Amino acid sequence: MDEERTAAWWGRRAWELLSAVRARAPLVHCITNLVSMDVAANALLAAGASPAMVHCLREVPEFTPRCDAVCVNVGTLSEDWLPSMRAAASAGRPWVLDPVAVAASEFRMEACLSLLALRPAVVRGNASEILALASRSVAGATSTFKGADSSHDSGDALQDAKALAQSTGAVIAVSGAIDYVTDGEWVVGVSNGVAMMQKITATGCAVTALITAFLAVEPSDAMVAAACALAIFGLAGEIGMESAKGPASLRMHLIDALYCLDEETVTSRVKISLQP
Amino acid sequence: MDEERTAAWWGRRAWELLSAVRARAPLVHCITNLVSMDVAANALLAAGASPAMVHCLREVPEFTPRCDAVCVNVGTLSEDWLPSMRAAASAGRPWVLDPVAVAASEFRMEACLSLLALRPAVVRGNASEILALASRSVAGATSTFKGADSSHDSGDALQDAKALAQSTGAVIAVSGAIDYVTDGEWVVGVSNGVAMMQKITATGCAVTALITAFLAVEPSDAMVAAACALAIFGLAGEIGMESAKGPASLRMHLIDALYCLDEETVTSRVKISLQP
Amino acid sequence: MDEERTAAWWGRRAWELLSAVRARAPLVHCITNLVSMDVAANALLAAGASPAMVHCLREVPEFTPRCDAVCVNVGTLSEDWLPSMRAAASAGRPWVLDPVAVAASEFRMEACLSLLALRPAVVRGNASEILALASRSVAGATSTFKGADSSHDSGDALQDAKALAQSTGAVIAVSGAIDYVTDGEWVVGVSNGVAMMQKITATGCAVTALITAFLAVEPSDAMVAAACALAIFGLAGEIGMESAKGPASLRMHLIDALYCLDEETVTSRVKISLQP
Repeated sequence: MDEERTAAWWGRRAWELLSAVRARAPLVHCITNLVSMDVAANALLAAGASPAMVHCLREVPEFTPRCDAVCVNVGTLSEDWLPSMRAAASAGRPWVLDPVAVAASEFRMEACLSLLALRPAVVRGNASEILALASRSVAGATSTFKGADSSHDSGDALQDAKALAQSTGAVIAVSGAIDYVTDGEWVVGVSNGVAMMQKITATGCAVTALITAFLAVEPSDAMVAAACALAIFGLAGEIGMESAKGPASLRMHLIDALYCLDEETVTSRVKISLQP
Repeated sequence: MDEERTAAWWGRRAWELLSAVRARAPLVHCITNLVSMDVAANALLAAGASPAMVHCLREVPEFTPRCDAVCVNVGTLSEDWLPSMRAAASAGRPWVLDPVAVAASEFRMEACLSLLALRPAVVRGNASEILALASRSVAGATSTFKGADSSHDSGDALQDAKALAQSTGAVIAVSGAIDYVTDGEWVVGVSNGVAMMQKITATGCAVTALITAFLAVEPSDAMVAAACALAIFGLAGEIGMESAKGPASLRMHLIDALYCLDEETVTSRVKISLQP
Repeated sequence: MDEERTAAWWGRRAWELLSAVRARAPLVHCITNLVSMDVAANALLAAGASPAMVHCLREVPEFTPRCDAVCVNVGTLSEDWLPSMRAAASAGRPWVLDPVAVAASEFRMEACLSLLALRPAVVRGNASEILALASRSVAGATSTFKGADSSHDSGDALQDAKALAQSTGAVIAVSGAIDYVTDGEWVVGVSNGVAMMQKITATGCAVTALITAFLAVEPSDAMVAAACALAIFGLAGEIGMESAKGPASLRMHLIDALYCLDEETVTSRVKISLQP
């Protein structure tokens, strides 16, 4: 990675990718959890993408190849949806995995490991999820567990994220106060976002869906796609926070802000930087 | 159809039907997609109806006959839900079909064709969906495909909609910048609504649910029920747009406006007209 | 129950329990209906709890015992989810049952009766639901039926609620203009809330989830947990109503208010009182 990727460079790239999503309206096939469907679909629409929530195994072979990218999220995993997830992940489109609460059960862990073997372009989770996944995929720290909410800081998972990227070939994105994105060699930090976003359900799922839309228009550089999507979503949260009085109004203002983002705002306020 | 159905006549009818929904609180059985459940239920409640999301096949024979009307929406179709959809459509209640993304797969197309054979009172879709359905039901144009979002204008589908109405006996409603409603002979156009409503997920599904509520109180005139529901929903969007700053606040203001609509607003602002 | 439980005593208890939820962030396992997932998860997060929507039978034996409490809601019951509900209810954690539209079908009634046999700490429903459940569990009134919306006042169900509490050992909470909570001997009334909350889908489900979070931090006194959660949710609705223009903005302001509640507001405005 070029060390001349300045903050300004990232700001321009984020704007280019958001503009490309708005221009091309990529069709994003989501097999996502039941809690996140509304907010993920609305985030995708606000960003300019075209969401498609389809989970029927009989439709995947025909439908998924016509999509631009695929988002798989195991938040409300069930035995009957897992084959559809595997099929969609195997359909030859660039895809993103969200291993929600991967340590909730051995069934879920094994499902995520089997999905990981299908080579996602990006894996996005919180620190606890990435630590748990790494603890089973590579020599790494043992994870502790507390539902879908993280009990670790994103920085705690950085070394494990790098190891996981190296062992899987995926770009790993760890959400937190600072989001880290790594390809196993380089690490970039994304400082956009506000703490209250964690008090809105499925914001993590929504940003994973947004990463998928960005990947759809930049399939050759998953690291840039992931970092820019995280920054854009976080920036929308910052702008939303200016008008929010609590998590529910933040959710509304965030989606509105995502829809309204302009070039000046994106290029001046995206905060992505190469980490030492 | 009486050509003396002036704009004022339609405005009065729309108000009468909305008032009847508020007065009678029809029980609307919805078997709808997972993305739309929240917004469809909230739209029905705001309009005065009583929504019931029930998809268990064992409940349908007992539950559906006690409902006033049925809404079937195939947005997140699966093999296990289809028998419930067929059973609910066969329960003897007036019902409405929303063939979301019908061209997504052959499985979905065949499911919709089998549902169409169960004689819905109304079918509501966007132009791409109606074109796709017509291309398989009647001699008509071949459809192109792009997920659940339409890549056609509603006017493009008008001739196919008429043919589909004639071949199925259903009233066909085609959503778009102008919504067209046809019984195969007459066509009315509904000009209410704002473009940004397409940036809110499941607004199409919500208006299909609203058509079902209007059909529940006006089962003998599906064309009037469909046109009035489309106009009322679009009008709520217009009023919501006056306060909206983006799609998420539009969604909120739309539902609020639907709840607050009064006689003066409805009779003066509903825009329905017989098409030449 | 101590008759010296004054309004001030209840206000302090409500604040203590809300503070405990915020401090401990109990992990609440919800197997809830598809309509309610978004609003229930957001209500739990706004109150400080950590929601986990998990419905896969293979995950329950491993996951549920690590949770602090369990919420089971049959709103969109299906044959494949019922075994998970039974397993979660049997996992040894305190749990709450929401018998949504229990009279919708014999299948649903029998499912609820079988769940009732697994000894929930609290059952919360509207008057029609509690009447229907009591009519099958104890000698009591026959219920009439109209979907998930109640056609009875909460007071109508009070005697049946007491009988149901006695026969099951559960605390029974009947939502309405006044919410009644009874352990079969004592009855408390909760007067917080506004009528428009009934025009928001799944507010009943959300308050059941909130009761579960309160039960998680006060497992030894289900009656206090239920009454305080009902009062806190109703109070958030009252505060939300000050800014609301309809049901959709009420929903937003309610969640915001729940997040922002402070000691002064809770202790002075909670309205719980022992009933004669």
